[in-house]
Amino acid sequence: MTDTILSPIPLTPQDFAPYGDVLAAEGDHVMINEGWCKRFHDRARLETDDAGRAGISIFHAQPRHFPYRFDLIERHPLGSQAFLPMTQHPFLVIVAAEAGARPVAFLTNGRQGINLHRGTWHGVLTPLAEPGLFAVVDRIGTGVNLEEYRYAQPWTVVDQGARS
Amino acid sequence: MTDTILSPIPLTPQDFAPYGDVLAAEGDHVMINEGWCKRFHDRARLETDDAGRAGISIFHAQPRHFPYRFDLIERHPLGSQAFLPMTQHPFLVIVAAEAGARPVAFLTNGRQGINLHRGTWHGVLTPLAEPGLFAVVDRIGTGVNLEEYRYAQPWTVVDQGARS
Repeated sequence: MTDTILSPIPLTPQDFAPYGDVLAAEGDHVMINEGWCKRFHDRARLETDDAGRAGISIFHAQPRHFPYRFDLIERHPLGSQAFLPMTQHPFLVIVAAEAGARPVAFLTNGRQGINLHRGTWHGVLTPLAEPGLFAVVDRIGTGVNLEEYRYAQPWTVVDQGARS
Repeated sequence: MTDTILSPIPLTPQDFAPYGDVLAAEGDHVMINEGWCKRFHDRARLETDDAGRAGISIFHAQPRHFPYRFDLIERHPLGSQAFLPMTQHPFLVIVAAEAGARPVAFLTNGRQGINLHRGTWHGVLTPLAEPGLFAVVDRIGTGVNLEEYRYAQPWTVVDQGARS
């Protein structure tokens, strides 16, 4: 029987690199505003097709709880999609290398946003606490920018440490 | 003698309209993710010149405290600039209709980002609590995209209600 339990791992730029960018105040930066502010410059690979453009939307999602079951993943073939939390609450990031592949569950540390590269398979937005508020930078435009894949059996994400 | 005291007013889309967009989970939206998420679609007027492109950076600014004194404002002639707080802490937004004009101080409600329209005069990023973490969507590109103006005398922003 296939193991359908997923245990989230900490989100790091290295582990997340195949799927997208981690957006955080870490690494190289410049000082601006007379020394009062660090700028971590241009951290996301924003992509859209020529018919689209980047825009900012606000998402307000209901929190989920562990154990979290899902069977649906999706991807956006025409552009990247960034999720910028407007709270300090960690959230779940579920991705998959391809449709049908075993998903990977990441948990943010409360000071991280993400940018999913164009075409990355991912679970829907999954906050774990109220309010599930995010600024989203993604492609605005006409055309079919959503593909969905449903697994034959659901996956269950358990709390970190609950499995070992 | 000119009154140099500013008392912040609540940030509303109506009052902020001459300067930019308020980005919040309010108003028209569509339901996505099988009813789990509200999408408030395409809320910012993103602008760049043809030589630039929109990008996402992370700003980490030191918090300020009331009474807050400043004499410098700036603007970006080549593009818009959005500030998306990664916390639920209210922050100060200082803008001016033109260089030399009396500034206006807004206070966010902890669930709002802003997008400054191209060329809007504004104060530097002004969080009021740790951590002063923001995702910023602005123009990435070469060219001179910063103008500064220094008032002959400083302005002082006092806490709401401290003045009346």
